[in-house]
Amino acid sequence: MTVSDAELRAMARARELGATVLGTTTPNPAVGAVVLAADGIVAGEGATQPPGGPHAEVQALAAAGERARGGTAVVTLEPCAHTGRTGPCADALIAAGVARVVVAVPEPTSLAGGGADRLRAAGIDVAVGVEQAEAETGSLAPWLTGVREHRPQVVWKVAATLDGRVAAADGSSRWITGEQGRAAVHRLRATCDAVVVGSGTAVTDDPRLTVRDADGRDAARQPLRVVVDRRDRLPESARVRDDAAPTLVSHAADPAALLAELFDRDVRRVLLEGGPTLAAAFLRAGLVDEAVVHLAPKLLGAGPALVGDLGITSIADALSWETVDVLLLGGDVQVRLRPTRHTGGRQSVRRGS
Amino acid sequence: MTVSDAELRAMARARELGATVLGTTTPNPAVGAVVLAADGIVAGEGATQPPGGPHAEVQALAAAGERARGGTAVVTLEPCAHTGRTGPCADALIAAGVARVVVAVPEPTSLAGGGADRLRAAGIDVAVGVEQAEAETGSLAPWLTGVREHRPQVVWKVAATLDGRVAAADGSSRWITGEQGRAAVHRLRATCDAVVVGSGTAVTDDPRLTVRDADGRDAARQPLRVVVDRRDRLPESARVRDDAAPTLVSHAADPAALLAELFDRDVRRVLLEGGPTLAAAFLRAGLVDEAVVHLAPKLLGAGPALVGDLGITSIADALSWETVDVLLLGGDVQVRLRPTRHTGGRQSVRRGS
Repeated sequence: MTVSDAELRAMARARELGATVLGTTTPNPAVGAVVLAADGIVAGEGATQPPGGPHAEVQALAAAGERARGGTAVVTLEPCAHTGRTGPCADALIAAGVARVVVAVPEPTSLAGGGADRLRAAGIDVAVGVEQAEAETGSLAPWLTGVREHRPQVVWKVAATLDGRVAAADGSSRWITGEQGRAAVHRLRATCDAVVVGSGTAVTDDPRLTVRDADGRDAARQPLRVVVDRRDRLPESARVRDDAAPTLVSHAADPAALLAELFDRDVRRVLLEGGPTLAAAFLRAGLVDEAVVHLAPKLLGAGPALVGDLGITSIADALSWETVDVLLLGGDVQVRLRPTRHTGGRQSVRRGS
Repeated sequence: MTVSDAELRAMARARELGATVLGTTTPNPAVGAVVLAADGIVAGEGATQPPGGPHAEVQALAAAGERARGGTAVVTLEPCAHTGRTGPCADALIAAGVARVVVAVPEPTSLAGGGADRLRAAGIDVAVGVEQAEAETGSLAPWLTGVREHRPQVVWKVAATLDGRVAAADGSSRWITGEQGRAAVHRLRATCDAVVVGSGTAVTDDPRLTVRDADGRDAARQPLRVVVDRRDRLPESARVRDDAAPTLVSHAADPAALLAELFDRDVRRVLLEGGPTLAAAFLRAGLVDEAVVHLAPKLLGAGPALVGDLGITSIADALSWETVDVLLLGGDVQVRLRPTRHTGGRQSVRRGS
């Protein structure tokens, strides 16, 4: 499979485009697409629009217009071959007269599959599997997790001091991280369909759990707020019950049950923002797909730890993660990680990131 | 004070040169120097040689030879004006015929001071205070701490999991960090005059505390190994007592007493590698100047924390640090920090890094 530098650059851009719509496309995948004209110059860009709106390829083709003819479409997911709320993207590519289609991830569902075959049948050159792992672990991960495991992707976010404390001994925790770190959390929330806390966090911190901009204003689109509250501890006056966003109070018995409940509500990407107990429950169940850890340059020496008991007693049994990237947010350090060991059979989603 | 871009580049290089000899110049400062020819091209470089050997300026002048004439000497510390084991550097600069001398840090001791005046009296243009804070917090910090506080600089190194555990519940801790992180610790040890642990660490982990290369061989130059052992718990068979390096078993009552004892032995830079209790004692005493924290992408959920009780109960009282830089060492994250609050009056050493 020969892929040009221009196509690889276009694929990287297509992944970026997919990431820009993460959280707005559910239950559809957040796909990105770039159309290169015959001379290799970018002619159009697109990303999946909210359900019912155009898919990424169709948007990119519309932007490229006549310049798509004889060109190349670069797309993170195999173009669909079926008619759902929109027509088949494969047909749109054929009609636009592209000479070549470069795809990262093959369509895993039989319903929408067959796009590459249909394109090839129309005489179009098709390359599938280009930088597939990068696309799978990026903005396609929520949708792929849904297809493969029938549950949402789980991103665990936690903010702690350098010595791993999420609060001081007296329970105070505002603010551990700085302004830049807290703004990053709001951007992260905006990419998710639901934000989950336990009743402990909901009662102690009384958070609103909304997506807010730098001025503290609520964003137009809000993820579902979820409080796991089996013992009905959440007071009626809790701020998470305000009308700024929908709220679900769940009585789910364990993380898997909660995720099943959320999946049925079309949630595909969950931000786990609960305390050490809820985080430990998800980690013990092997149900964390990504961790975003914010570490403030502070030491407390006492206070609740970042994660509760995991049933681990020896260093050899430590939960082991792969460091995806590290970012400085003011003085805070953001570390993004994915598990390297997992009880489920999901290696393909994890590989090579 | 006008300083050219070439001079600023030379100053950055001079700081690097100083850093290359950190740990080999004690009790002298680790100075770096660059000589620019009249046309602004680098003509010679130098760094302080071990005690009795040439100072940085003299080495750089020797490398530059005749090209120093009419040129500029850029040096991290004001050239000395006194005859110690070597002659006055100011005189060497005058003899070499440089037209200009650019200095970061003014000489703080009356013994060696007066270099800039002597240069100016000889008709040389002198700029003092160029990127002074950067030089002060770099390789000059051990020596400056000695001059200003009559104690060694203290660098605290700790390796922990992301949730701040230095060992698992069963006490096992080998290895928390990966090969690259452990190699970095050996390089860090090599820049220090002494490595300090408590008897707890010495007994539990039985470390050798030597500087070793990638093949595990002991380096030629070894820092002093120090075990704080007030209750004579260190067994005769402890590996730290082998003949690979000198070892001091100290009965010092507290961190200040230990540092005084080490300062009297000409130690100017200490690597604190002890456990949570020793680290907490130094932190409570305000006697940590820099922290090097290695965080492995692992979770344990239980086990001893990175630092013991600091007497802090509220988030507002957390020890607050400035993040100097972040480095990825394999999957491990290295965070380097300096305190932003300190009980001592040492702001000038900390500022602006």
